[in-house]
Amino acid sequence: MRNTAPTVKALVFDVFGTVVDWRGSIIAEGRRLGRAHKLRVKWPEFADAWRAGYRPAMARVRSGDLPWTTIDALHRIILDELLKQFGISGLAAAEIEDFNRAWHRLKPWRDARNGLRRLKRDHVIATLSNGNVALLTNMAKSAGLPWDCILSAELFNHYKPDPEVYRGAARLLGLADDEVMMVAAHKDDLFAAKSCGLRTAFVARPLEHGPKARVDVQPEPAFDFNASDFIDLATQLGA
Amino acid sequence: MRNTAPTVKALVFDVFGTVVDWRGSIIAEGRRLGRAHKLRVKWPEFADAWRAGYRPAMARVRSGDLPWTTIDALHRIILDELLKQFGISGLAAAEIEDFNRAWHRLKPWRDARNGLRRLKRDHVIATLSNGNVALLTNMAKSAGLPWDCILSAELFNHYKPDPEVYRGAARLLGLADDEVMMVAAHKDDLFAAKSCGLRTAFVARPLEHGPKARVDVQPEPAFDFNASDFIDLATQLGA
Repeated sequence: MRNTAPTVKALVFDVFGTVVDWRGSIIAEGRRLGRAHKLRVKWPEFADAWRAGYRPAMARVRSGDLPWTTIDALHRIILDELLKQFGISGLAAAEIEDFNRAWHRLKPWRDARNGLRRLKRDHVIATLSNGNVALLTNMAKSAGLPWDCILSAELFNHYKPDPEVYRGAARLLGLADDEVMMVAAHKDDLFAAKSCGLRTAFVARPLEHGPKARVDVQPEPAFDFNASDFIDLATQLGA
Repeated sequence: MRNTAPTVKALVFDVFGTVVDWRGSIIAEGRRLGRAHKLRVKWPEFADAWRAGYRPAMARVRSGDLPWTTIDALHRIILDELLKQFGISGLAAAEIEDFNRAWHRLKPWRDARNGLRRLKRDHVIATLSNGNVALLTNMAKSAGLPWDCILSAELFNHYKPDPEVYRGAARLLGLADDEVMMVAAHKDDLFAAKSCGLRTAFVARPLEHGPKARVDVQPEPAFDFNASDFIDLATQLGA
């Protein structure tokens, strides 16, 4: 099942952590807000806590405990809680809403734009993220990400790793499941895609959780490709 | 309600006829097929008949007579009928399927690419077409259309002019209805968008139905903008 590139017609990408550096971007936005308001906040901890709230929040949607709720709305629920926890006050409503939209402005990893441009030559490239359509569209515009198509969990009312998301992406692209390859820095996402019949490409993002975190970046033989970044993936795909 | 450009954040575009010249493109593809197979077919008539089958086919979906069916599938149903009507035989299955996908390869009007690039600077630009996602994504790639986002009736299981499509587009873009402007060469599409609270821009496409057809290209005061093409629209919007 390796070197199956010729039959892969579309590449669909996890976004948070795989394409963009959510942690570095949120820390930078937090520091900017902190300077403006003379806040004493450990922003790396704040960013990690915001991201850590995301899986349990999605799990409540996946279990049916919450009705369909976008990531923008889940981020806001977590943010309101964290503002209390970190003792942050004095922000105007518009500032809180703007801070929540920091997720629309996440910065790409250094190789992402150029790698995507190369990968785009021979493949349809699309997001396949739990982020909502507006978030992904605004992010693409601000970060210059050249997607052919914005696909999101929101279109299926299911969050990854629910199979509806992976199969739904192939259906919307008019392709068989095995003509689509999921690209992600997270092995659980890739194993879920693989169990739906999609091809898989792992991209190592050792700095996703910061310089001190230990991240699993070992190549995994079960995946069709293992790459060090998008440029390496493009080279392996002959793009 | 005129000159409301500052509050419009996204432009959503009708595609067949508004962005691309479906008639000229289908005629050219038909002629190519005809030469290869020595067919004697009046391709302008064929193209018009193919397009004419589209509204009744969609009406069957809108009325509930057919379950949700993509435009690709509706085009194919009409094509199979027309091949008989026009006495065309001897095509391989793969050739028929490829001809059906001529709709994925429609050519843009001369001003479309440059106009969209200008409009994209200050606005999110997205399709809002009855074409399915795969068709619109493939067309964008082959025609070089720089969409920020592919939105389609397929995402809502409703065809325009059903209100679910216009309101669904605003919802997915995270915008209020009146922050979105529908751009189309067809007044019925614009009146339907307007009744959902969207802004409206009419673009004249006098050649959509060929050089001999009479097309309504009169400016309509009920719309926010009336433009001669996308370049003119960009200029009127200050882009």
